[in-house]
Amino acid sequence: MKKQLNVGIVGYKFMGRAHSNAWKKAPLFFDMPVTPVLKAACGRNEESVREFADNWGWEDIETDWQKLVTRPDIDIIDIALPQNLHYEIALAAAKAGKHIFCEKPLSMTSVQAEEMLKVCEENKVTHYLNHNYRRTPAVAHAKKMIEDGKIGRIFHWRCAYQQDWIVDPAFPLTWQLRKETAQAGPQWDLNSHAVDLAHFLVGDIDTVSCLTANFIKERPIADENASGSLSATSLGTEMGEVTVDDAALMMVTFKNGAVGSFEATRFASGRKNRLTFEIYGSEGSITFDLERMNELQYFSRNDAEGDQGFRTILATEAAHPYANNWWPAGHIIGYEHAFVHAVVDFVDAVEKGISIKPDFSDGLKIIQVLEAGLRSAETKQQVQL
Amino acid sequence: MKKQLNVGIVGYKFMGRAHSNAWKKAPLFFDMPVTPVLKAACGRNEESVREFADNWGWEDIETDWQKLVTRPDIDIIDIALPQNLHYEIALAAAKAGKHIFCEKPLSMTSVQAEEMLKVCEENKVTHYLNHNYRRTPAVAHAKKMIEDGKIGRIFHWRCAYQQDWIVDPAFPLTWQLRKETAQAGPQWDLNSHAVDLAHFLVGDIDTVSCLTANFIKERPIADENASGSLSATSLGTEMGEVTVDDAALMMVTFKNGAVGSFEATRFASGRKNRLTFEIYGSEGSITFDLERMNELQYFSRNDAEGDQGFRTILATEAAHPYANNWWPAGHIIGYEHAFVHAVVDFVDAVEKGISIKPDFSDGLKIIQVLEAGLRSAETKQQVQL
Amino acid sequence: MKKQLNVGIVGYKFMGRAHSNAWKKAPLFFDMPVTPVLKAACGRNEESVREFADNWGWEDIETDWQKLVTRPDIDIIDIALPQNLHYEIALAAAKAGKHIFCEKPLSMTSVQAEEMLKVCEENKVTHYLNHNYRRTPAVAHAKKMIEDGKIGRIFHWRCAYQQDWIVDPAFPLTWQLRKETAQAGPQWDLNSHAVDLAHFLVGDIDTVSCLTANFIKERPIADENASGSLSATSLGTEMGEVTVDDAALMMVTFKNGAVGSFEATRFASGRKNRLTFEIYGSEGSITFDLERMNELQYFSRNDAEGDQGFRTILATEAAHPYANNWWPAGHIIGYEHAFVHAVVDFVDAVEKGISIKPDFSDGLKIIQVLEAGLRSAETKQQVQL
Amino acid sequence: MKKQLNVGIVGYKFMGRAHSNAWKKAPLFFDMPVTPVLKAACGRNEESVREFADNWGWEDIETDWQKLVTRPDIDIIDIALPQNLHYEIALAAAKAGKHIFCEKPLSMTSVQAEEMLKVCEENKVTHYLNHNYRRTPAVAHAKKMIEDGKIGRIFHWRCAYQQDWIVDPAFPLTWQLRKETAQAGPQWDLNSHAVDLAHFLVGDIDTVSCLTANFIKERPIADENASGSLSATSLGTEMGEVTVDDAALMMVTFKNGAVGSFEATRFASGRKNRLTFEIYGSEGSITFDLERMNELQYFSRNDAEGDQGFRTILATEAAHPYANNWWPAGHIIGYEHAFVHAVVDFVDAVEKGISIKPDFSDGLKIIQVLEAGLRSAETKQQVQL
Repeated sequence: MKKQLNVGIVGYKFMGRAHSNAWKKAPLFFDMPVTPVLKAACGRNEESVREFADNWGWEDIETDWQKLVTRPDIDIIDIALPQNLHYEIALAAAKAGKHIFCEKPLSMTSVQAEEMLKVCEENKVTHYLNHNYRRTPAVAHAKKMIEDGKIGRIFHWRCAYQQDWIVDPAFPLTWQLRKETAQAGPQWDLNSHAVDLAHFLVGDIDTVSCLTANFIKERPIADENASGSLSATSLGTEMGEVTVDDAALMMVTFKNGAVGSFEATRFASGRKNRLTFEIYGSEGSITFDLERMNELQYFSRNDAEGDQGFRTILATEAAHPYANNWWPAGHIIGYEHAFVHAVVDFVDAVEKGISIKPDFSDGLKIIQVLEAGLRSAETKQQVQL
Repeated sequence: MKKQLNVGIVGYKFMGRAHSNAWKKAPLFFDMPVTPVLKAACGRNEESVREFADNWGWEDIETDWQKLVTRPDIDIIDIALPQNLHYEIALAAAKAGKHIFCEKPLSMTSVQAEEMLKVCEENKVTHYLNHNYRRTPAVAHAKKMIEDGKIGRIFHWRCAYQQDWIVDPAFPLTWQLRKETAQAGPQWDLNSHAVDLAHFLVGDIDTVSCLTANFIKERPIADENASGSLSATSLGTEMGEVTVDDAALMMVTFKNGAVGSFEATRFASGRKNRLTFEIYGSEGSITFDLERMNELQYFSRNDAEGDQGFRTILATEAAHPYANNWWPAGHIIGYEHAFVHAVVDFVDAVEKGISIKPDFSDGLKIIQVLEAGLRSAETKQQVQL
Repeated sequence: MKKQLNVGIVGYKFMGRAHSNAWKKAPLFFDMPVTPVLKAACGRNEESVREFADNWGWEDIETDWQKLVTRPDIDIIDIALPQNLHYEIALAAAKAGKHIFCEKPLSMTSVQAEEMLKVCEENKVTHYLNHNYRRTPAVAHAKKMIEDGKIGRIFHWRCAYQQDWIVDPAFPLTWQLRKETAQAGPQWDLNSHAVDLAHFLVGDIDTVSCLTANFIKERPIADENASGSLSATSLGTEMGEVTVDDAALMMVTFKNGAVGSFEATRFASGRKNRLTFEIYGSEGSITFDLERMNELQYFSRNDAEGDQGFRTILATEAAHPYANNWWPAGHIIGYEHAFVHAVVDFVDAVEKGISIKPDFSDGLKIIQVLEAGLRSAETKQQVQL
Repeated sequence: MKKQLNVGIVGYKFMGRAHSNAWKKAPLFFDMPVTPVLKAACGRNEESVREFADNWGWEDIETDWQKLVTRPDIDIIDIALPQNLHYEIALAAAKAGKHIFCEKPLSMTSVQAEEMLKVCEENKVTHYLNHNYRRTPAVAHAKKMIEDGKIGRIFHWRCAYQQDWIVDPAFPLTWQLRKETAQAGPQWDLNSHAVDLAHFLVGDIDTVSCLTANFIKERPIADENASGSLSATSLGTEMGEVTVDDAALMMVTFKNGAVGSFEATRFASGRKNRLTFEIYGSEGSITFDLERMNELQYFSRNDAEGDQGFRTILATEAAHPYANNWWPAGHIIGYEHAFVHAVVDFVDAVEKGISIKPDFSDGLKIIQVLEAGLRSAETKQQVQL
């Protein structure tokens, strides 16, 4: 029988489902030397976590995360919670010697992030930050193309992460819209993804200028417990202040001389989950759009004159990272598949005792950029990292 | 504990995987009144089927399908095999009172299909033919739009199902390229999907004109047992005759007065799995492309003058069939998800003792059209159905 | 001073404008050895033709085409009229030794076309049939790519020419909808373009199967003289029979073994002037859409594995035929520019005493295919050319 | 006979051709109450300007612009020159009472622009700044949609103007790359267009943060007189410093609360002349791409739930500004057509003695934003306008 690694998860909402699916599905499609076991799920509401565990096949439940992270039969702690809860749990898990699979964004502050990284390193646990888009076949292939020199010297990064779920002023004041639970708005939630991709594909950021906007100042107060299925009609008339940004724009310079821009917003009507980036280089260019995540646009200056143009690469072929484990060419995969790839690589790293990217050191760098952004927005000056 | 239905599957290759994934995944994402149990998997090669069953969690294995279909602990037979093996197994399963979830195309001939339907009806079993594309959110939404009158009277159906996996003359003579195992080429494999969608979205076909082509007459003979991972280098020099079409074109009239066309080919360089259709009507139009299966293009003649145009609907919202059970809006799903939807609806039909579409009667109609096509290609005349 | 060639035009509506513009504009953007002079315009209505001539700078007018074609100061007769008027004028012009620039489709019948060709050859005049889409930079570049072997052996041609201007049943019975003036509907008007492109890019057609449809049987009778600005409200209540097809589909085999399909329709809601073709070959593929006429999609099987995909070539660079005479790369041209290219090449051919493609021999071949199509639609059989 | 206005043009290269074409073509396609007459063309090189005038039909030539602007038979001065030559000529022309049709960007500095505006106003001449993209049917229609409330309150402007003509380090040091002739790089040349569109469609800009980059520091020195047809091979080995930006990024706030971003670059491999903007509002969104300038993407939050999506409006219909004067729906127009629209509207304004937008007051505002950008890039601080 194969070696096993026992997973304990904290959180059972959107990310709890996405992670559970990944833990279950990974060994079905990938040849894994070690099998992850869905050992225990943890949440404060016993009834809800029970139902969640039953559905997804978590063997056991806990209602106190402190118990979970110290259980001797647990090897991996999966933190599938909002960012305000990562710090404490990650510290405790690392101190208990557990490997950590942590949802993004890493933390509320860079101070937290630094300590999280330090404690993980001290306790020699594998730490992974789930910026899953790196592991879509299209983005992973883009990375390979850059490494192979197909893009050459990079001049430009142009990125936007656009959603539209709070355009309606009647949308309630959920935890994402309050500073104490979210730290920031799209600057944290969306730009953390975008900055991770920029670091991954272009390189380290050197300076940041940032602009934030708040379009709707107050919103109906939401019932926190019902946040899964919010509707305007179920809300009372009491209003509360929105204490995070509705949109955040950044201009950056990279240490390698490239320049870039970011836009993160929840006010782009018609964009549901559009994370798009453009990379322009001396040999070629690449663009990507998460709403068409199986595709990569590629332009090569080395194609024959007159025959040059942006190609739509459908990243579903054997030559594309991860793709071969799924279906034949042309059969696309979905949003959740990148989580599966992350689980596969994470388990491999844990088993081999090696690190996996992005980890908490990457997360720290991201938080530093995001914080620098907020500082720049406040001071209206460029901030050097 | 929930009621259960026990499934026995025959076949463990491409479709075996896709079906297994669906049986497992359906209850995780959908609230199903009855839980499907992966009871037994069947295949001729014991070692292979054992490995398959272990991976996917099939409780038991069989190497003789006759045994499987008569096991009293089996409620559902899932036929995940090539078309030349459907007839015998389906008859036996129906006679044993098993409900049938059958891969497409239904059969080798319409005579077979008629008998399959008859025996299923006599034995009052639920029979389902897996034209899964009907159950993508985009196509299911298109159907609803048509039913709601948004397209109006349909004038045109224009469809192509294009792949390119045998353009290389060194590609071997697999079972798909021989008449005794496949009956026909794209006319069977691809046009069965296309005709199903035409029936579903436009209506019954009245007349057929067809043209078939064979571009490469003979190919290296393949080792049948190694068909999962064929490569030109592992082949000998012996050549065999290709006995099916490489491409099939059809022009049809529908009983409702619409006209349509089909192209099915494995020689469209650059198209990996492109099933595209266009529907033009008196109120609006719809187009679809399987390589972007989360999207639907919709034109309405009732939009304001000057503001009309084809819209890209990203069918990932709560308003779109099945979509709400997956992820938030803008988070796309993949190829295999439509299989999950099929399993959900099939189990529901079995439980309620009702029929599900498409069933063997739909399959019979499809085979009749495909056969009429082959007849037309031979006689060079239009064939009336 | 440069040598001059005097042009006489017959017709002053849509095509009269497009041709006049081309004659005027050609020497401005192209270095032409001979200057075309807008000598005389001819139309039955003196007032209208006078206004037209004044606007476009035609030096003189005629109201009788017989006079025009025999004027000794005219070198070129430009026939910018519907197809029912080409035959008589072309014969007379050729007999008078005039070179002919003729709008498409060539004629009402292949018998007419044969005679037109014969008389032109006997009188040694240059004859050109204005299938202008050949001379868009994108299509001209596609031709070059095919000649250079970049597409290889062609397997498939898939073409549609779709418009939607008569979906409304209140649209009147204009000359295009009556057999005596138009001979056929989209089969003549649109498929003549499509067949020309197929001949140009793929090769000669060998067999034809055709299906025609008439969706709206009768329409309000139109005032012929007001056909330029028809509106439903200005029509009476008298109805007349539509005596041409509303849509025509064809399936063909080419002499070189390729197979193809055509759809021509005026009932494709949302398509204004979409002429789209797809060509699939053993080395690569090409697609085109007239509504994005500056672009060509190109797929090469010879690109690196994993980096393959359809490229959008923006055919505005110096490497693209005709493009260099207009604007810098990325600055697109419009519909009428292909007429300019035709004029440039035509004048060059006249001056050199050589032929230009497509000429009346090409037109004859097109009409033969279209006629074969109508015959096939009637007999419901494939027709051999 | 119609009233006439005599035009004198200065400049005969890229813009000289585009303007000449517009003056000639406007009365052919539009019903103009006044006819523009191509009276005289002016350039320093007599031979070149003679050839230009002969080709385009300018009646006369001048080699001294001071003479041209004081000729009594001239009503309109068309300044089709680089920005470093606008100031002096515009002042002289206005003082001579000539109406001015001026190429963009308006001037080298805002001080110049202010004086240009003042002198024009004092002399009561009509002044027009040729930001022609406002007058493409698609952009003009977008403006109308915004005015009609279809976009609602605007939250976001996201714009990029991308070219790639100087990616090659061997490209020479033309006038566009030297501060004394161009003032700035894409910040002047490209962002002037982009800022004009932002002002037109969104509103006045309030604050600017800017980042500029220079990727290639020195280039081969070019022969100024041969700038029309530069090639690397004809250059010597002497190198000169590039003294303008290669790329410029801006983040802005608008007075109405919207936020926006700009990217202007000549280093975006694969983009030939891509000016793309996205506008997101409370009721809907609009996007545009100059390389597909006949199209507008429009999303409406007021479409039926489930049927929402970005529509591709092909702005070639009678309902779209200017489109009706060209061809039937679906027949696209090209880059130069917007110049024709500008001429039509300019002549109308001159005739009526009214102003036309954008004029020098708009140009001044643009230059102020661009200058603020350069200041911000230098100080690394946000600049308030």
